[in-house]
Amino acid sequence: MSAFASPWVRRVVLAPPSLKDNTADGDRLVAALKKELGADAVDVDLELLKQLPALLRRCGYRVRCSVFRDRGRWVLTAIDGEDDPRPLAGLAVDLGTTRVALLLIDLISGRTLGENTFDNPQLAIGPDVLARIHHADSPAGLNELNHLIIGGLNRAIGDLCRSAGIGPRDVCTVSAAGNTAMTHLLLGLEPRWIIREPYIPVVNRPGVLKAAELGIDVNPSAPVLVFPNIGSYFGGDLIAGILFSNIHQRKDPAILVDVGTNAEVVLGNRDWLIGCAGAAGPALEGGVTRMGMLAGPGVVDRVAIDPASRRFDIRTIAAKAPRGICGSGVIDLAAQLFLSGMIDIRGKLVAAACGDRLKVVDGIRHLVVVRADQSATGEDLTISQADLDSLIRSKAAMYTILETLAMTVGLNFGEIGTFYVAGTFGCFINPRSAIAIGMLPDLPLERYMPIGNSSLQGAALALTSESAIDEIDRIRDRITYLELNVNQDFMNRFSAAKFLPHTDVGRFPSVNLK
Amino acid sequence: MSAFASPWVRRVVLAPPSLKDNTADGDRLVAALKKELGADAVDVDLELLKQLPALLRRCGYRVRCSVFRDRGRWVLTAIDGEDDPRPLAGLAVDLGTTRVALLLIDLISGRTLGENTFDNPQLAIGPDVLARIHHADSPAGLNELNHLIIGGLNRAIGDLCRSAGIGPRDVCTVSAAGNTAMTHLLLGLEPRWIIREPYIPVVNRPGVLKAAELGIDVNPSAPVLVFPNIGSYFGGDLIAGILFSNIHQRKDPAILVDVGTNAEVVLGNRDWLIGCAGAAGPALEGGVTRMGMLAGPGVVDRVAIDPASRRFDIRTIAAKAPRGICGSGVIDLAAQLFLSGMIDIRGKLVAAACGDRLKVVDGIRHLVVVRADQSATGEDLTISQADLDSLIRSKAAMYTILETLAMTVGLNFGEIGTFYVAGTFGCFINPRSAIAIGMLPDLPLERYMPIGNSSLQGAALALTSESAIDEIDRIRDRITYLELNVNQDFMNRFSAAKFLPHTDVGRFPSVNLK
Repeated sequence: MSAFASPWVRRVVLAPPSLKDNTADGDRLVAALKKELGADAVDVDLELLKQLPALLRRCGYRVRCSVFRDRGRWVLTAIDGEDDPRPLAGLAVDLGTTRVALLLIDLISGRTLGENTFDNPQLAIGPDVLARIHHADSPAGLNELNHLIIGGLNRAIGDLCRSAGIGPRDVCTVSAAGNTAMTHLLLGLEPRWIIREPYIPVVNRPGVLKAAELGIDVNPSAPVLVFPNIGSYFGGDLIAGILFSNIHQRKDPAILVDVGTNAEVVLGNRDWLIGCAGAAGPALEGGVTRMGMLAGPGVVDRVAIDPASRRFDIRTIAAKAPRGICGSGVIDLAAQLFLSGMIDIRGKLVAAACGDRLKVVDGIRHLVVVRADQSATGEDLTISQADLDSLIRSKAAMYTILETLAMTVGLNFGEIGTFYVAGTFGCFINPRSAIAIGMLPDLPLERYMPIGNSSLQGAALALTSESAIDEIDRIRDRITYLELNVNQDFMNRFSAAKFLPHTDVGRFPSVNLK
Repeated sequence: MSAFASPWVRRVVLAPPSLKDNTADGDRLVAALKKELGADAVDVDLELLKQLPALLRRCGYRVRCSVFRDRGRWVLTAIDGEDDPRPLAGLAVDLGTTRVALLLIDLISGRTLGENTFDNPQLAIGPDVLARIHHADSPAGLNELNHLIIGGLNRAIGDLCRSAGIGPRDVCTVSAAGNTAMTHLLLGLEPRWIIREPYIPVVNRPGVLKAAELGIDVNPSAPVLVFPNIGSYFGGDLIAGILFSNIHQRKDPAILVDVGTNAEVVLGNRDWLIGCAGAAGPALEGGVTRMGMLAGPGVVDRVAIDPASRRFDIRTIAAKAPRGICGSGVIDLAAQLFLSGMIDIRGKLVAAACGDRLKVVDGIRHLVVVRADQSATGEDLTISQADLDSLIRSKAAMYTILETLAMTVGLNFGEIGTFYVAGTFGCFINPRSAIAIGMLPDLPLERYMPIGNSSLQGAALALTSESAIDEIDRIRDRITYLELNVNQDFMNRFSAAKFLPHTDVGRFPSVNLK
């Protein structure tokens, strides 16, 4: 018998019943679990109770139980014979607006059984939460959005389980983290008031629900922990990110930056946490340029330009012929264009430096990044002046948000120990490039730590760590949400940040300008 | 606005949200309810959350909430606008093996909205729990039994709601009490081990479930409180009976006798409770004789025989032509036959005294109670010697159980203040007759108190009294269950009780023998 790694899987040996001890099966199990877990009560679902009499007698009252805790309340999520090799899996979900990621975990060993991602099927309704919330104004619209995400999840769960060689019914715990709107659409809750003053979600603490009531095709009794949100613009995905980054337990202040359509930032330590979120635009996700796309084979994720020869060295994912560029690629490209003098401090293409890579389409200047004969599409892959302008605004928004947050707590960037950079979908930003364009402050590179999909990893933590469950609520209750007051002062700082790397170049001593 | 009578219906006024107070709708409601109820947490079902945003805005944040408490946990069961006249109903169910009774209650006023009873459709499978438990040995058999009782309940609920002018969805709390086997069949739990040594139920404390998960057609979110049982032979119906009789809170010892197929007896006071149950046979329910039936129009429920003329004076329910006899009628009949000398102290028909009422069918003596020309069936209604023998065994069993219980705690009957006699289905036993045949001890008549369907009334208490919820568990945990040890001593007492009224006639001074 191997040792159990997970706090959620417990081996329990019951005394067999006798005339002198005729406690009912369910009560007998609950009593043993209460003792094992030090719990006041343990809930046992009716479906599990139905299996109990035959199971207990078959396995001689030696069972392996999968449990979960919903705040103070323990629940039994699965039970089988002690030596029964049935898999016990947990599923973590990051509910992205654009892309949804799943992680399947073996609850006994804690090992990853598989991962899966899929485009959020709600993209068919609208690219962002705003469009979807408007669509949800009709009850049929809300149902449609709910069915799209649940359907997408169920297909992905089916595929993931098949690959891992388990059945969906073996998945007996689920955790999900998403922004506030996505959380509402998952639960089928009206998102209407999220975007209307005074911006009120239906629920901030959805707590633990049952898979069956959400229509998620795993074990129907499986509890589904839905990460809480702070408010309409600060969702459970960021709480999961904080949980994973652990900034809430560090002595020195650290920052967590989640770069997506929204720039979501949390600054804090074990004593305080302050967060804010602001629209950064889709530029940082690679979502603006015609060639922009999500990470995948053939997608450009690194660009280097030799400052002397202006020769491009382009890396694609899986080394396939280039077909587009992702967020980190765009940031690399902009940094390299700037450092090689091909764009100026305002982000404008410099004709003399761009040479024959410059072309004009519909009156707008474009820079050819990959020529048609080398691209997978057979067409030039270009970035336009408009794309670059959009990127400048996005990076300025990000920097201004970071600056505002630090100012609010009276810290300068140098006092912040670690910058955790959570990339969307594992396509990581190169901090050197982000600094070069002035998106992130000029700190020693070792202070930047990419942590991948921190929302997904935080959701996974809830499946493997008992203390994580308590921390989720503690994090939520500790965060001060800073409402970004877009006043003249903010606009002034934003304007100053709209240069490469910044109007105040003294802030970026490491950026080696030609 | 009328005052709220029920502890479960609360009026709550929420502060409307603002930019300074952007708490989510659900969290806002929960915070207000926690304050109103003094609760640590209040669960709000997903279905109710879905209604919340529109409801709160429509009614200006002034709501009426129906709540319920599952041990320490509060749950919201329904919500509407403060001045919304929507009905809020609770349903109490007594799950009898033979007959099921329902009581519909207005949760706001506490008034009864209606009652309904129906024959347990599982009678088609078997007359008693034993036959049904055997039938449930196949999974299809268990499903069948579960669907029969749920289907019967749903039809009766539909009828009851229609009569009361409300919709099934207006029923937002349910409580159900039944014996252990019936409770298992309601929940779809395998009853197999209830009747096999060492007699283990699947569950003794089913707690609170959801109507939807049981398939009960009321509001799908409605909590269903299922009364706990003590063991295989001491069910939730008796716990409900104790709750209603209140013997658990009295200073003086009292006894609760539930006369059904089983003789279920509880003796105790506020300091101690001891209970036991034993098979009494169906005789006391009117279930043995060919003419025996449940109470209903045309059913004989009172019999008087003039000792001098031996003229029968027969009362039927609703004064219809006689078509059968119920349990209380059988006890009256036996007492009157005995007191008029038509049966002897062994319960044998005395030919000389019976005269032309005596006839022999298939070699067995029968006494004609109602002649064919006066019966609704056009046939003689008779009671056979075999029926009388069976009745004697049943009454002897009941008396012996009472005697054993009293002996166990060292009390004599005279020290017991009140005998609560719970009749099945409101067809009450006449204590004078029950004493005459020696089924109940010879105490002053005023000590006997018929309390009707105490199981149904106890179930109803849980819907109207908050403290009842806690008492249920306290009663359950306090009862000492006396395992009837059918040894030589018990058999000796049983044999002594098989005479009318008893071998030791000195115990029955009030019985006026001819």
